[in-house]
Amino acid sequence: MKISIIGLGLIGGSYALALKKRLEGLTICGWDLNKEHVVQALEKGIIDEQCSTLEEAIDRSDWIFVAIPVDAIEKNIAAMMDRLTDEQLVIDFGSTKSTICEVLQGHPKRAQFIAAHPIAGTEYSGPGAAFAELFDDKVMIVCDQEMTEKRFIERFRKQCKMLGMSTSYMSSSDHDVHLAYVSHLSHVISFGLSRTVLEKEESERDILDLAGSGFESTVRLAKSSPEMWTPIFMKNKNAMVEALTSYIEQVTTFKELLSVEDEKGIQEFLKKGREIRKILE
Amino acid sequence: MKISIIGLGLIGGSYALALKKRLEGLTICGWDLNKEHVVQALEKGIIDEQCSTLEEAIDRSDWIFVAIPVDAIEKNIAAMMDRLTDEQLVIDFGSTKSTICEVLQGHPKRAQFIAAHPIAGTEYSGPGAAFAELFDDKVMIVCDQEMTEKRFIERFRKQCKMLGMSTSYMSSSDHDVHLAYVSHLSHVISFGLSRTVLEKEESERDILDLAGSGFESTVRLAKSSPEMWTPIFMKNKNAMVEALTSYIEQVTTFKELLSVEDEKGIQEFLKKGREIRKILE
Repeated sequence: MKISIIGLGLIGGSYALALKKRLEGLTICGWDLNKEHVVQALEKGIIDEQCSTLEEAIDRSDWIFVAIPVDAIEKNIAAMMDRLTDEQLVIDFGSTKSTICEVLQGHPKRAQFIAAHPIAGTEYSGPGAAFAELFDDKVMIVCDQEMTEKRFIERFRKQCKMLGMSTSYMSSSDHDVHLAYVSHLSHVISFGLSRTVLEKEESERDILDLAGSGFESTVRLAKSSPEMWTPIFMKNKNAMVEALTSYIEQVTTFKELLSVEDEKGIQEFLKKGREIRKILE
Repeated sequence: MKISIIGLGLIGGSYALALKKRLEGLTICGWDLNKEHVVQALEKGIIDEQCSTLEEAIDRSDWIFVAIPVDAIEKNIAAMMDRLTDEQLVIDFGSTKSTICEVLQGHPKRAQFIAAHPIAGTEYSGPGAAFAELFDDKVMIVCDQEMTEKRFIERFRKQCKMLGMSTSYMSSSDHDVHLAYVSHLSHVISFGLSRTVLEKEESERDILDLAGSGFESTVRLAKSSPEMWTPIFMKNKNAMVEALTSYIEQVTTFKELLSVEDEKGIQEFLKKGREIRKILE
């Protein structure tokens, strides 16, 4: 089996490394809009061969993984699918799924497409940040699986299992709403905290001295790539506005409780929030 | 030198363990309102002897560390100081400093008191969570140091150095404003995120499946103790309301940019926030 990786960043690069760790003799070719990324990916052994065009990356392989920003996926995915022969499969790893699935609605090759999302990542990006263990024990979400040929879904499930991942199935619209709450919202929160503190503190030294591990944990996601995250927020606008509205209500409620020194109210607020312990270790 | 630890939780317990790791033959006695904590602290070797009363814990030692919730410090600190002989020293480790320093303003033994705050912690609490390395390479803030006898400040600085901590000096009011931004605010943010997601998601299974490491990092502080944090927020009300107002403005600005699909505005928002990378590794 020949594999192409389109987009050689953290996700595409780590997926290639994870595959190579488990499959001996596998040849992976790759393409990236950023030619420096291609050079780095070759040097790091993420890919064995580079493709000079996106089209070449599609034509050369049986399975094509697409791990580029979601707006670029949406823009290019239909033309990519147009090129497929009957046995080829395209799998996208975008962080939002609804608009990508909408673009392919009614496409003659739709059954050769899997809308997937590996729930894994770090605040870093590019092939330099890629590592083979990123997906260990993580979840691969597969959306609208009834639109894909069963044998492809089953083969992909087996590949995920080989990589140590479990597979979870849901509709693309459910995916986007859930991810707005448990992933995308966290990113806005971190960026908002970072901006608040940067605007307040006049000297960097003060922050360095006083910021503990709690701040570092909460603000970590603010190191994420704006180029990657702007399209994610844009493509998941409705769910994000809903999640942000709920979140702003929560923080505003806390501020009001504190303003009137409602000690019992504050303690109840915190106790309810602390129930997350039952769910996350 | 004899040392007493009043409050045998994460901070008091870890400080005792850190001291014992470096000083052979040191005897530490301790007191806690929670008698189970005292038993655990004895079993874990945090303390060597228990004191049956708070008064006994003061009378028996040269240096007395106070690591109980900030409202309890504020309530008891003056009476504790009243008992001191001329060579004794009290050091408090509360997370807010202004109201505690105000209570001791004009106290005849004020020069035998150090208002300190070790910038270290985890989301866990109690003596079971204590560990000797908690303070390694961390910062000890000392507030209003001009109110304390110089020789005590110098001796305490040496002890912190021995424990691998650097010392930073500032006014108690600056401390509280800065900590509102780089510590207390992060906690409200995490509790608010937790509540938002818990209210949205109907089944716990969904959260478990979809929550990645980003969510876990941002929500981590929501596991913190409401009993400890309610008084911190209450004692730092003014700075917290100011910080919360700025923060809510930031998140609301983002929501508005997204609502009108201002792609450039969103990217600028994120780029500014990402500048935290220059400050935190």
